[in-house]
Parts: sequence; structure tokens; C-alpha cells
Amino acid sequence: MSDFKPWKIIQRKLILDRSPWLQVHEDQVELPDGQVVDGYLHLEQPDFVIVVPVQSGGLIVMIRSYKHGVGALDLHPPAGYLENGEDALSTAKRELLEETGCEAEGWDELGAFIVSGNRGSGSAHIFLATDCHQVTTPDSGDLEEQEVIWLPVDDVNQLWVEGSFRQIATVAAIGLSLARLKMELP
Amino acid sequence: MSDFKPWKIIQRKLILDRSPWLQVHEDQVELPDGQVVDGYLHLEQPDFVIVVPVQSGGLIVMIRSYKHGVGALDLHPPAGYLENGEDALSTAKRELLEETGCEAEGWDELGAFIVSGNRGSGSAHIFLATDCHQVTTPDSGDLEEQEVIWLPVDDVNQLWVEGSFRQIATVAAIGLSLARLKMELP
Repeated sequence: MSDFKPWKIIQRKLILDRSPWLQVHEDQVELPDGQVVDGYLHLEQPDFVIVVPVQSGGLIVMIRSYKHGVGALDLHPPAGYLENGEDALSTAKRELLEETGCEAEGWDELGAFIVSGNRGSGSAHIFLATDCHQVTTPDSGDLEEQEVIWLPVDDVNQLWVEGSFRQIATVAAIGLSLARLKMELP
Repeated sequence: MSDFKPWKIIQRKLILDRSPWLQVHEDQVELPDGQVVDGYLHLEQPDFVIVVPVQSGGLIVMIRSYKHGVGALDLHPPAGYLENGEDALSTAKRELLEETGCEAEGWDELGAFIVSGNRGSGSAHIFLATDCHQVTTPDSGDLEEQEVIWLPVDDVNQLWVEGSFRQIATVAAIGLSLARLKMELP
């Protein structure tokens, strides 16, 4: 296996600051062969969680809402940004409760993944939440109107394999969660 | 199923232009309840392809390179941006050839997925390329040093389920491709 050297950041210049949502930087980088590249964009965006909640009867809890980035009605798991100082698991439990009114007994972090291999753009922390059950009514506090939908695992699998989900993070989270659920089946 | 209305864009203001890589907009939007929200960020970034190439013997062709967004050495499928006027399938074939020196006989588009449900940020087009075979030496033309690696499907599956891939788009593409390959097995 080759031992590639990292790029060296000679200078990082902040060119747009819309904290806490977005910071755009221009990096001057030196490549391993000595070549210097100017203006390579690096984006700071907040980390977020995606929670795939499954209740004991095998239903998966999803959210349907209009998403402005998609420009359409979208079906996706509960998700949200880490708030100040919050760890990812706390965010996951908070978002599950706020968006669906549910709590869960089992929490598995399936990984944390960079949004853009070139630009950065923060990380997505994916959780599988098992033995999920309703404890209160949803109250997301989000700008979006939201509807909570309980779908059989087989229906979610079908939507996933046929490419019907719209967000790349949804596809990643559903795929990993379905694989984990299959591993745990007798 | 509820019939949610889309948000209405009252005004879209370009606040940073680094075309063709990035345009940042601030949207003034009207929500369905009449509330007006200022400064909702919308990002335009180029669409890209991810190609999961499988040869007839069951090996998957991957790339190992330093990725600046990850800040580390990264294992990922061949991928790249759509260039001017290019359709996604042409990009996929071009990137596979440039980055791995391979061509493929079978091409399935497994879906196109929005990078950010809130911000937009372009779409990822995921392709499964089957009966992949080497026809020339790789010559990516990219800034990154790259190494081509052929891995057994089972090894790729193991890396996927244990959360070892670093990019969210890699996780989505590998998951969908493995599911499609399993469906096609006798």
C-alpha cells in the first residue's frame, strides 16, 4: 500500500462567513510533488446526525417534509445539526424525540462520514435506534412542516434499492441500517 | 398522505461566486404558513458521478488517494464532476477510464441524489459498472496521487458494514451497488 503524503496547507483564507451554517475558505496548498495550488475551496458546515429508528414490531419511523435543498417533498429519517457543544448521541436522542415523539432503547453509531471528499462540508453521524417507541407528540421546532410515517422494513428496503430516496445521506443511512438489522436477525 | 406546499422563493441573492465550483446564494423564502425567512443559504455545486466497477471475477476496482476534504488517505470508487454539457453516463465512462484505465460492458444508473437536503450542493449520480476490464494505464489528470486497488466484493462489504469508508457518497454508492449485485446473483 502506498504511503501518500497529505497536502500541506500553506495558507487558509476565510472568504465568506455565515456562521454557524457556513464558512467558505480558499486554501493555498502544496501537493506532494511541490506544485502549489491556489484557491482550493474548503467548506465548514455543521456536523449533523441521521437516526434510523426501528420499533420492536419491525416498522421504521420516517419523516415526510418539504426540503428546500431537494426542492420537493422528501422522505427521510429524523435528522438534525449538532448544537453548541452537544455530542452526536445526545443530538440523535434529541432529534428523535423532537421530530417523532419517540425514545429508543438501543443506540448503535454506524459511523461518521465526511459530506464532501473535496470540500469537507462537515460530517454525518449515522445512528440505528432500536426498540423505538412513542412517548409524546412530535414538536420539531423546525421551519419545515413534517409528517411522521411508520413504514415496514421491507417497504423501506424496496424504496432504497430502487433509488427512490432523494438525499445521499438518506441512502447511506438506510443502507447501513438495513445491513445491521439483517446481521442481527436470527 | 399530506400534500405539503413547497417553500416560495421571494428573492435569491448571489453572495459568493466561485464558478464552476461553488455559488452561494441567500434565499428569502415564504413558508406555507406565510412566515418569511431571510438568508436561508442555498449552494450550487457541480453534479458528480460515482462509479462502482466490478470485473467478471468479482473484484471491485477502488481508488486510494489523499482527499483534502477528508484530510486523510481515503479509499473510494472512481468519481468526478460532470464537465460542461456532459451527461452523467458519459462522465462515468470517462472517469472510469481516466482513473483506472478500465472500460465496462454493463452500466446501471442506481439513482441521482441531492448532496444536502437543506442547502442543495448538487447531485451525486451513482453507477454500477459490470464486466469491467483493464484496457490502458490510468491517467487521471487529477491533482491527487492515486493508486488503483482491486478488492474482493466480500472485503468491500466488510469495510462498508463496519463503517470504514470515510465519505458519505462512498457509503451510499457501495451500499446500493452491493444490493444490486446480490439481486443479480443466481
